[in-house]
Amino acid sequence: MNAYKELEAHYQKIDDLRHIGAITGWDESAMMPAGGGAARSRAMATLNVLVHDLTVDPQISDWLMACENLELSPMQTANVAVIQREHRQAACLTSDFVRAQTEAVMASEQQWRISRAENDWATIQPHLERVVGLAREEAAMRADAGGLGLYDAMLELYEPGVTASQLDTLFEPLKTSLPPLTDAIIAHQANTPCLPLGDHFEVAAQRELGLSVMKTLGFDFNHGRLDTSHHPFCGGVAEDVRLTTRYSETDFLQSLFGVIHETGHAMYEQGRPKDWLTQPVSQALSMGTHESQSLLMEMQAGRSPAFMTFIAPKMRAAFGRAEDDPAWSVDNLYRQVTTVRRDFIRVDADEVTYPLHVILRYELEKALIDGSLTVADLPEAWHQKMTDYFGLSTAGNYKNGVMQDVHWPAGLIGYFPTYTLGALMAAQLFEAAKTSQPETLQQIETGDFTGLLSWLRQHVHNRGSAVSVDQLMTDATGLPLTTDAFLTHLHRRYLD
Amino acid sequence: MNAYKELEAHYQKIDDLRHIGAITGWDESAMMPAGGGAARSRAMATLNVLVHDLTVDPQISDWLMACENLELSPMQTANVAVIQREHRQAACLTSDFVRAQTEAVMASEQQWRISRAENDWATIQPHLERVVGLAREEAAMRADAGGLGLYDAMLELYEPGVTASQLDTLFEPLKTSLPPLTDAIIAHQANTPCLPLGDHFEVAAQRELGLSVMKTLGFDFNHGRLDTSHHPFCGGVAEDVRLTTRYSETDFLQSLFGVIHETGHAMYEQGRPKDWLTQPVSQALSMGTHESQSLLMEMQAGRSPAFMTFIAPKMRAAFGRAEDDPAWSVDNLYRQVTTVRRDFIRVDADEVTYPLHVILRYELEKALIDGSLTVADLPEAWHQKMTDYFGLSTAGNYKNGVMQDVHWPAGLIGYFPTYTLGALMAAQLFEAAKTSQPETLQQIETGDFTGLLSWLRQHVHNRGSAVSVDQLMTDATGLPLTTDAFLTHLHRRYLD
Repeated sequence: MNAYKELEAHYQKIDDLRHIGAITGWDESAMMPAGGGAARSRAMATLNVLVHDLTVDPQISDWLMACENLELSPMQTANVAVIQREHRQAACLTSDFVRAQTEAVMASEQQWRISRAENDWATIQPHLERVVGLAREEAAMRADAGGLGLYDAMLELYEPGVTASQLDTLFEPLKTSLPPLTDAIIAHQANTPCLPLGDHFEVAAQRELGLSVMKTLGFDFNHGRLDTSHHPFCGGVAEDVRLTTRYSETDFLQSLFGVIHETGHAMYEQGRPKDWLTQPVSQALSMGTHESQSLLMEMQAGRSPAFMTFIAPKMRAAFGRAEDDPAWSVDNLYRQVTTVRRDFIRVDADEVTYPLHVILRYELEKALIDGSLTVADLPEAWHQKMTDYFGLSTAGNYKNGVMQDVHWPAGLIGYFPTYTLGALMAAQLFEAAKTSQPETLQQIETGDFTGLLSWLRQHVHNRGSAVSVDQLMTDATGLPLTTDAFLTHLHRRYLD
Repeated sequence: MNAYKELEAHYQKIDDLRHIGAITGWDESAMMPAGGGAARSRAMATLNVLVHDLTVDPQISDWLMACENLELSPMQTANVAVIQREHRQAACLTSDFVRAQTEAVMASEQQWRISRAENDWATIQPHLERVVGLAREEAAMRADAGGLGLYDAMLELYEPGVTASQLDTLFEPLKTSLPPLTDAIIAHQANTPCLPLGDHFEVAAQRELGLSVMKTLGFDFNHGRLDTSHHPFCGGVAEDVRLTTRYSETDFLQSLFGVIHETGHAMYEQGRPKDWLTQPVSQALSMGTHESQSLLMEMQAGRSPAFMTFIAPKMRAAFGRAEDDPAWSVDNLYRQVTTVRRDFIRVDADEVTYPLHVILRYELEKALIDGSLTVADLPEAWHQKMTDYFGLSTAGNYKNGVMQDVHWPAGLIGYFPTYTLGALMAAQLFEAAKTSQPETLQQIETGDFTGLLSWLRQHVHNRGSAVSVDQLMTDATGLPLTTDAFLTHLHRRYLD
């Protein structure tokens, strides 16, 4: 076996254990009874340490060096590059650190589920202090090993090649233009208020509707499933994608568009390059790219008038509403799914105000990492920014304030910005898809996503991690990523 | 750290990975879509090889030797003994063999689900040939390492200390006495035929009834859950026990008593010695002991007139039946759950004919292992024995014949006899519990299982693997295991 083949075999083994970890992680969120948590945390930590130890195996450096003298295909070369980055990223952490972090994060996530439900900041604060403390240590080690800034070193885990200074440049026009745009849209929408849809929607019917929309979008149920969890996510592995949602009996749109969102993620996973599934090069290019796929489905395609025309009759059928009920007309349902409001919860936010939720978190987590903000001061800092950006107080309202997201309790710092990168990418990609295939919206109106999906397969999914985000965007849309398509989309959808 | 502490730390790590494997295994049976099977098999094989490599780590021998000079507590001494046996059992297999076997077994199990549904022997035969071939290799290696006979070496995995010749001695009186006993009971029951219960029972109502009975028996839902699978089982880990059942819309008793059975297993797992959960000494003593706990709940307690008195009103409520409906009286329901018939399916068999199902499999698998029977000849051999022992032909009826059980496709050879050992133990243990706590049946009649459970906790569950089966039975019942209590129970329940 030559060095490249050795590397592939080694990463197949790593991929096997990541498979096991992904399924057990899904189980922890979607299936596990609370009493199983302590033993599970320990078990997951042991698995993570094993995976970590395999990723930092000193043989990898030797194989990587030997690969320089081999003639490799472009995909093999790209695979080596991803392995090189992953190896460098892992090698700066000790096994003991990985174990301590996994255990801290799992205990903290488990506590978060309880504390959030009880709006109890005091019980989550010590967990968060421990997790943020470990994240600071991690950032210092990563920054040192990668020659990066503290925050950049964390960001690189989710969005390789992007720095905080690039984010500042991209986010600045959003931070400036979105507040007045939000005002204008809210004033505009006040002219045609939504009719209410009712306040009780059977969970079983919601689930059936969600499953049928997943099928419409092209989800392959032979390689995945839908369940429920506290915090919706797309987990599992490419061969077995695990989506979750959560149901509110008073609002079916929340879960439905959540399912569409997660299905966008799932289509990316199910579309990864088939011959490379065990290798790092087949992985999603970045979390921003991943989010572009979920937001393209949820925001660009899913909330389009075309899709609402298709789905409205199915919504009426699911909940036994009459065809001539004005609240259940395409127009009113479209207004329902494009209503803009300043509100507390990021995951329920409309696409106009969403970036401000992200920028708020981005600013706070940068301060957490550089030490200028303590966890103890976090609720107050959150409340201040919510007041500044949204005019909303979260004083004492931890549940809908600083405790609403699982990310920080889960140790994910540097992740939030990828949501807005994804929104920008989604707008630019969807625009390019429609330009290249002008029949896209007519197809969506009939529930036919095959054209759109094959464009995404070709320009995004099948490329894996074999290109940079810049290259992917330029190949697919003719331009690197900017805020133009996104802002144009908002103006066109909400003010024209 | 002294050698004993090293050993404990090492086995804690092994236990962590077994935890991960147990949850992923449960997922494979209860949750995984079929398309995830190939990748899952590979992933599970990698995990199994890792666990195997840890179990055969050469340091273990050194630590075990060093332990001989340490002063250990009785539980520590017992823990060392179990580790010694496990290490010896694992050390005779290579990693390559473990990988090949795991992959073969998982492919075969996955094919079995399809083939059985289609009554298609041809598609499972090659898988079974591969799995049985590997089992023969395994038996040869184990026999060699343990100084045991081929079949005894496989049996030792599930029932340490028991040999085929001991089984022959225990099974002989059953093989002789059960056929005439069955005839007598069937004739006796013909005098009072059962009234039919109806032929449609909502799955949701069945599930609710099952959950409520689990609660009655003492199942801790903070440490476990109930789901569905093709073949019901009790999996997961002590801290998070995963029960499964399957529902038939035409027969709710099948699932209900299946749930009671699996809950018996679960109570054993949830009752393992708390301070020793990460160590082998806390494991179930043997599969026969495990089965004694499920059968004690299902057959001894569950099908008693006392429990039927308690559960009959709940059954009527679950399915909306009137209190004075004669089919739903305690007497008729009791007759329903104690009806004896010669039938095809082992898992649905009554307790009188069940041992003959086991003996049939025991005889066939011994012949498979010693090479006197080929997989190709298995359907015919099955048909012959079914004709001899039950007067039933399974010619062409693979689904309800040789393909009905997952055990052989799953590579489990030497497992079946433990079902009947369990039945014998259950009868003897229940008799002892009632003698020691004469109020047991009155308590069960009110749905109070706490007395029985605490007796089982003390005499079985909390002992873990710290004693031999003989010792456990003698301590709990005053006698080693015999067939007496079981045969007495059958005569008393079915002919008096």
